[in-house]
Amino acid sequence: MQQIIDFVLELDKLKSVTRKVRTLGSDRFENPAEHSWQIAMMAMALREYAAEPVDIDRVVRMLLVHDVGEIDTGDTMAFVEGGWEERKRAEGAAAERIFGLLPADPARALLELWREFERGETAESRFANAIDRAMPVLMNLANSGQSWRENGISYERVVRRVERQIAQGCPALWKYLEPRLADARGRGFFGA
Amino acid sequence: MQQIIDFVLELDKLKSVTRKVRTLGSDRFENPAEHSWQIAMMAMALREYAAEPVDIDRVVRMLLVHDVGEIDTGDTMAFVEGGWEERKRAEGAAAERIFGLLPADPARALLELWREFERGETAESRFANAIDRAMPVLMNLANSGQSWRENGISYERVVRRVERQIAQGCPALWKYLEPRLADARGRGFFGA
Repeated sequence: MQQIIDFVLELDKLKSVTRKVRTLGSDRFENPAEHSWQIAMMAMALREYAAEPVDIDRVVRMLLVHDVGEIDTGDTMAFVEGGWEERKRAEGAAAERIFGLLPADPARALLELWREFERGETAESRFANAIDRAMPVLMNLANSGQSWRENGISYERVVRRVERQIAQGCPALWKYLEPRLADARGRGFFGA
Repeated sequence: MQQIIDFVLELDKLKSVTRKVRTLGSDRFENPAEHSWQIAMMAMALREYAAEPVDIDRVVRMLLVHDVGEIDTGDTMAFVEGGWEERKRAEGAAAERIFGLLPADPARALLELWREFERGETAESRFANAIDRAMPVLMNLANSGQSWRENGISYERVVRRVERQIAQGCPALWKYLEPRLADARGRGFFGA
């Protein structure tokens, strides 16, 4: 029991990691804990639009665990390019450390979920990755491109970083986003 | 699709609702979005300690949706007494409004989960309620009783508000907490 409690309290640190998007209606940068909650909710609401039939509960669990490594590494914007492989290795080591606080069985199960998300080779992980990539796009479309403008992220870079994953995991969502991204370009939502 | 997007962006408001516990290692009051994430993770880690066999995925989904009504009502400490029924009615109306943003099928499914948690009549909802009640206790044990002291909450009140739910849904967790609460009393972690 003490191992589980230590793990749960260690998770609290994710609430103090900052992402680049601010919560709508406040100036505070969102953190990966509340972001993970929001995309898990989005997965439940969006399940019938998955590209392939999915076990939605595994999608939800995957989205809940996928950012835990950022306790050690901090967050990197999905729109950033370069150094990605290295950061993913560091996050993997962090996930091993953090899930390793747990007894062997739950540790193994949660680490396997984390790895499945990263590999993106199953229908569930493709749907989960689509949602994870789409969420900051939705936030930026709702807040005039705040994190794109603040970080000098261009329209081309956003499309390059999200199109394949979203179109592959949730085609209807990409169909929704594509014209809105083009429209946002005309309205100056992008940097650089 | 637009209904689902509207729902997901509406959820963002939960990130700006404040609870009475501060995140460990910062002065910021935690919000119900990150709290919901943390207890969903706790449920996954603690599943083998549930009082009865549970469908852990329904527990996780229930914990993710259980605080959504607080977008309209704000948070009320679990340790507060009085006015509980009235607040729960207001939260119910809020849950109907918020889930009602979705198409009929997911709206019904999520509202039913929310109600199952509130009724606490299934093994899953009893386990979920135990975890929800235990989390602020764990936080207070880890931060010298911050929210109990700041809000004048006594040892007796805490025990009265959490013992039954935790002991019923997760007896091993109550066995862990009980002596630690008694110890915290001697160390001045409580108010009033």
